[in-house]
Amino acid sequence: MSKIIAINAGSSSLKFQLFEMPQETVLTKGIVERIGLTDSIFTITNLDGTTDTEVVDIPDHTVAVQMLLSKLIANGIVQSLEEIDGIGHRVVHGGEKFNDSAIIDDMVLAEIEELSELAPLHNPANIIGIHTFHKVLPNVPAIAVFDTAFHQTMPKKSFLYSLPYEFYNKYGIRKYGFHGTSHKYVSERAAALLGRPIENLRLISCHLGNGASIAAIEGGKSIDTSMGFTPLAGVAMGTRSGNIDPALIPFIMEKTGKTVDEVLDILNKQSGMLGVSGLSSDLRDLSTAAEEGDERAIIALEVFANRIHKYIGSYAARMSGVDAIIFTAGIGENDIASRARILHGLEFMGVYWDPALNNVRGKEQFISYPHSPVKVIVIPTNEEVMIARDVVRLAGL
Amino acid sequence: MSKIIAINAGSSSLKFQLFEMPQETVLTKGIVERIGLTDSIFTITNLDGTTDTEVVDIPDHTVAVQMLLSKLIANGIVQSLEEIDGIGHRVVHGGEKFNDSAIIDDMVLAEIEELSELAPLHNPANIIGIHTFHKVLPNVPAIAVFDTAFHQTMPKKSFLYSLPYEFYNKYGIRKYGFHGTSHKYVSERAAALLGRPIENLRLISCHLGNGASIAAIEGGKSIDTSMGFTPLAGVAMGTRSGNIDPALIPFIMEKTGKTVDEVLDILNKQSGMLGVSGLSSDLRDLSTAAEEGDERAIIALEVFANRIHKYIGSYAARMSGVDAIIFTAGIGENDIASRARILHGLEFMGVYWDPALNNVRGKEQFISYPHSPVKVIVIPTNEEVMIARDVVRLAGL
Repeated sequence: MSKIIAINAGSSSLKFQLFEMPQETVLTKGIVERIGLTDSIFTITNLDGTTDTEVVDIPDHTVAVQMLLSKLIANGIVQSLEEIDGIGHRVVHGGEKFNDSAIIDDMVLAEIEELSELAPLHNPANIIGIHTFHKVLPNVPAIAVFDTAFHQTMPKKSFLYSLPYEFYNKYGIRKYGFHGTSHKYVSERAAALLGRPIENLRLISCHLGNGASIAAIEGGKSIDTSMGFTPLAGVAMGTRSGNIDPALIPFIMEKTGKTVDEVLDILNKQSGMLGVSGLSSDLRDLSTAAEEGDERAIIALEVFANRIHKYIGSYAARMSGVDAIIFTAGIGENDIASRARILHGLEFMGVYWDPALNNVRGKEQFISYPHSPVKVIVIPTNEEVMIARDVVRLAGL
Repeated sequence: MSKIIAINAGSSSLKFQLFEMPQETVLTKGIVERIGLTDSIFTITNLDGTTDTEVVDIPDHTVAVQMLLSKLIANGIVQSLEEIDGIGHRVVHGGEKFNDSAIIDDMVLAEIEELSELAPLHNPANIIGIHTFHKVLPNVPAIAVFDTAFHQTMPKKSFLYSLPYEFYNKYGIRKYGFHGTSHKYVSERAAALLGRPIENLRLISCHLGNGASIAAIEGGKSIDTSMGFTPLAGVAMGTRSGNIDPALIPFIMEKTGKTVDEVLDILNKQSGMLGVSGLSSDLRDLSTAAEEGDERAIIALEVFANRIHKYIGSYAARMSGVDAIIFTAGIGENDIASRARILHGLEFMGVYWDPALNNVRGKEQFISYPHSPVKVIVIPTNEEVMIARDVVRLAGL
């Protein structure tokens, strides 16, 4: 038995989850928000299932981690910090160097730092998390679990852009894909729920959160995915545009007088459902507005579903058919109406689903009819348990 | 009976085709190349089927048109210019203003000029063609036939980008789509060949030339297409990238020190099959190189087919199924191996095709098995006859 903590560090936040392995029991979990700002918020669950929230100034990640570790003892979750056997860090970008999780040593850390160029918003925050835990728990093995690793099985015809080839060789320009840990988790769960070996399955996994990506998973391996060089590409998301005509960037620059970086910022933060609706990036808000007849909310929801619906067709073609379609993450697990819009009209490829079964939120459930040749399954994702499992596997715990 | 000339004017070229209508007999056709340069090339077919080619300096489009009209008389194709009853001009961009061809008057011309902003490489050349013919044949009715018009039936969920909505209202930023005249022609031919009313058909039209676009055509109406705001978007083409992660533009700018316009130029002219292979934008060259084992030619051909294959799946999903897939334009009509790669593995959606039937170039032929639920048809495109038909219809000839 070992205790493993899974860490997801953002620039001003730190999510954590403590597991008892191999049982995969969650001992506690929580989040520190607004790190480096005033009125930071520390939230942690207790052993009895209740939640403590504390508002206090937390100047940096080191203080956040120290506070977290003190709480673990103060709340009786562990008796001593020596009980923590391993730490798993989510790292967004592993480039082409990492096709699996890795034990963090100086070389691995240097490589993650080098890869910050490809994920300037994410990897630096992940690195802060790694440094901070290393300072506080220097002798506990730490593992990096990469969002990109699962997609490293994509063949060249999937990952190569049709750009001058030297852009790939010189600058690492290619499709990397993200949400890999989630796509991997739900594809393994799907195989278990289907009672079939994953080697024989063709799965389309729809990870639909504020960021959204679709993956084509054949024989347990990702062979294509909608996100690209960055998490901006693919389907339309909460605030991200997804794919657009590349020629729009200079056109928007000229029309608005903005720099290319400012335009990119619009594509990342003011586009997607927020941009189309002018209301919100949250599909719950848009559903409410749509019910009240707001036309732009209605069209935003249609655009969202339309792009994903087309990716499903595209990835079915990519794998010469599909055995199951998986919905996961915030929207995928909970938004009944979006799932219905996305699945509407896929009968031609063997997808028959039951509106009654689709009336489910946040739990594993088949929503296809039992006779449907293609199964459709809602599977809550669990990136944290994947991180904990990789710590156990790589640290030999 | 009337004689109609169809004109496709580029910045340094002028293609023409003279029809006897309504029989649709081609009396002559040809092309003037290198207009404005030295050693311009004038090519025209004679009544006996032979071809004349003349190399001579042609300083501008007016001279080219005058030369063409003189040749028509000199070669005995017409006795007098008064026999020409109508002129049809291909115009690339008709924006949201034109959902059909239009008789060119001052207002229409002003609108085409205004739309040059959306097609700065194309509309100005088309306008030169219009002006030149108007100067030489001021009393002959002239019709503009727009590449975008056929796609104006796309619903909002197809044509709207997930960008801030005001970009659509203020700047006309939306998907327009191109090759509309070709997609319309082949979809009508497909209905005739299938012997079914077009109103009941779901067609996927693959116009694959040096520029390439795919269209989803439901009941004779375009409901989605792969090109976008400009002809850069969609599938990978001869020299165009098609869709890429938009975040790559600033990244490439930073890495190469190029301006956004220079990067766009790379995406338009040095990407696609040329960029991936480093050899050629011409699939015939790449096929030869691939047979000799050139790895980058092989991957370029795979990338080309992969993107189109996925669009077919995507548009089948878009229409909840498909009745026929059409291949047209240079590659679509002639490249047997590319069609095979594109069609490979679509049996799951009812596409069964015969390698023996696929062994065809440049003529109308079903290449699906007779029992295939989804038909696959090679149909040579004919944008010129569509232009001539629209002249007859709109000029009341």
